[in-house]
Amino acid sequence: MITLRKTGSFFVGGRSISVTGQTPYQVRLSSTGTREYDPNGTYWIEGAYVQYFLQAEPRYEVPLVLMHGGGLTGAMWEDTPDGRPGWLQLLLEAGMSVYVVDNVERGRAGFCALDDVWPDRPLSRSDEEAAQIYRFGYAGHRFPSEAMQGLSAQTVPRWPSTRGLQQQALIDVVTRVGPCALLGFSQGGGLVFGAAREARELVRACVALEPHGVPASFDGNLAGTPALMVFGDFIEDSEHWRALANHADASIAAWNAAGGLAERLDLPALGIRGNTHMMMMDTNSDEVFRVVLDWLGPRIAADRQRS
Amino acid sequence: MITLRKTGSFFVGGRSISVTGQTPYQVRLSSTGTREYDPNGTYWIEGAYVQYFLQAEPRYEVPLVLMHGGGLTGAMWEDTPDGRPGWLQLLLEAGMSVYVVDNVERGRAGFCALDDVWPDRPLSRSDEEAAQIYRFGYAGHRFPSEAMQGLSAQTVPRWPSTRGLQQQALIDVVTRVGPCALLGFSQGGGLVFGAAREARELVRACVALEPHGVPASFDGNLAGTPALMVFGDFIEDSEHWRALANHADASIAAWNAAGGLAERLDLPALGIRGNTHMMMMDTNSDEVFRVVLDWLGPRIAADRQRS
Repeated sequence: MITLRKTGSFFVGGRSISVTGQTPYQVRLSSTGTREYDPNGTYWIEGAYVQYFLQAEPRYEVPLVLMHGGGLTGAMWEDTPDGRPGWLQLLLEAGMSVYVVDNVERGRAGFCALDDVWPDRPLSRSDEEAAQIYRFGYAGHRFPSEAMQGLSAQTVPRWPSTRGLQQQALIDVVTRVGPCALLGFSQGGGLVFGAAREARELVRACVALEPHGVPASFDGNLAGTPALMVFGDFIEDSEHWRALANHADASIAAWNAAGGLAERLDLPALGIRGNTHMMMMDTNSDEVFRVVLDWLGPRIAADRQRS
Repeated sequence: MITLRKTGSFFVGGRSISVTGQTPYQVRLSSTGTREYDPNGTYWIEGAYVQYFLQAEPRYEVPLVLMHGGGLTGAMWEDTPDGRPGWLQLLLEAGMSVYVVDNVERGRAGFCALDDVWPDRPLSRSDEEAAQIYRFGYAGHRFPSEAMQGLSAQTVPRWPSTRGLQQQALIDVVTRVGPCALLGFSQGGGLVFGAAREARELVRACVALEPHGVPASFDGNLAGTPALMVFGDFIEDSEHWRALANHADASIAAWNAAGGLAERLDLPALGIRGNTHMMMMDTNSDEVFRVVLDWLGPRIAADRQRS
């Protein structure tokens, strides 16, 4: 059961752009023949979409901002590909207010289709590339492979050039939301740590699931802010994942050198085996969720002991 | 206050596509240098995304499916551009279970970025084109123009060629959801009437807000199914809108000739003036919502008299 005061969304960040001097042209519409299309005019681009779910009686002091991974959207936090409840449902049942981001170019944030604004073209991720990067090939993995279509359907194109825009947009999101905790996955894990570095006065806790692109340094004082990086199974079996885990270790050390309280959690060390990169979709996604909530909850509970 | 049993999402429709024979190439990633990208492989494309909000205690016999307009996503039903509660919030407060569609290419459904699959390129809608098509130029209009940026930010590119894919995907959505009512806006208004034609045994009521692309005929027996087309103000002042209203009238006549119970409702005839195409975002969006709910509610109420 979920009792909300309010759900809705807002757009944040981005910029206005003006197109001039283009020649209008005819386009074919599938429903009604052709019409003239004039590309000249004013557009708002490079913002982020944020859908929010505000508890009627939140059980935590601050809300949680969810940041998706590369080639994905906020839909990744909803039902798993095989139709089980996603982490969004579990978070709401736990009494947490949640902000779900679709970052620049992804999902409802929309992408920029104007000529000559972004320097590159979007790339699509094949099922085969996904299976390789997400560690679906290891014996004993827990991704529900029979439901690969559900993951494939929610995988969207990504532009290689937009990370800086996404980092700025997430900082804009945090500034708009105010005091909060952050939970990011993969590319989004790097982005939440980057946002925590830039908006540290607003971030009460920061969690990344198998992050990519984490900062190597944190200037100034993190004032005891707790942070967590979570890894699944088979990390040591993959050169790609060993390298990312090493980056994570360095970022954790930098966070702590700046006065924060960061730690790394490997699920196999808790006896939880078989988790792939898509740990929020794996067949034991509820169990992984519980590990994350057990860490995060006490650090942002409304009735926690204040230090 | 909103009390939900469940929220989440699923993907429906679409097809698998295989890319072969392409040469991998290097791409530049903004975060981590370059990497090889291999476009060969398997992809799932042309599905729709459906986010659902299921009431703990629904007050209606069937849920409502919301279908966005062209160049927009399901976000259009959430907060208005000037930050007031959107129709999604109002529907949920009214005790209705709701399915919000992002159709093929839009929002979280994602688009197909593979070469040579879709025949055209996406078009962006400028603020100037929006203002003209949406009737923001008339004296006394009620769009919150000071918040144009909020509408611009949620406007996304559209492909002119995808209407047939979107029609099929919406039929797939209705088939998956089961018995339901439909509410579509603009392009989505044409799509909901098209879906009602193809899946009539599942559609209990059909509402379109200023629809575009409505069917000119309905084969077979609509068995008394109620339908409504709603128009705002300034319709007669615009050649474009007069034409669309004429299409609507013809479609209503065809619906009724097939045994249905369709009607047209012009808000000015109720004394409600100033509504633009974006009536769910206009400053009196709550009032327009009430008109729609007053029509729809009794037709799908859980405790209604059965005919």
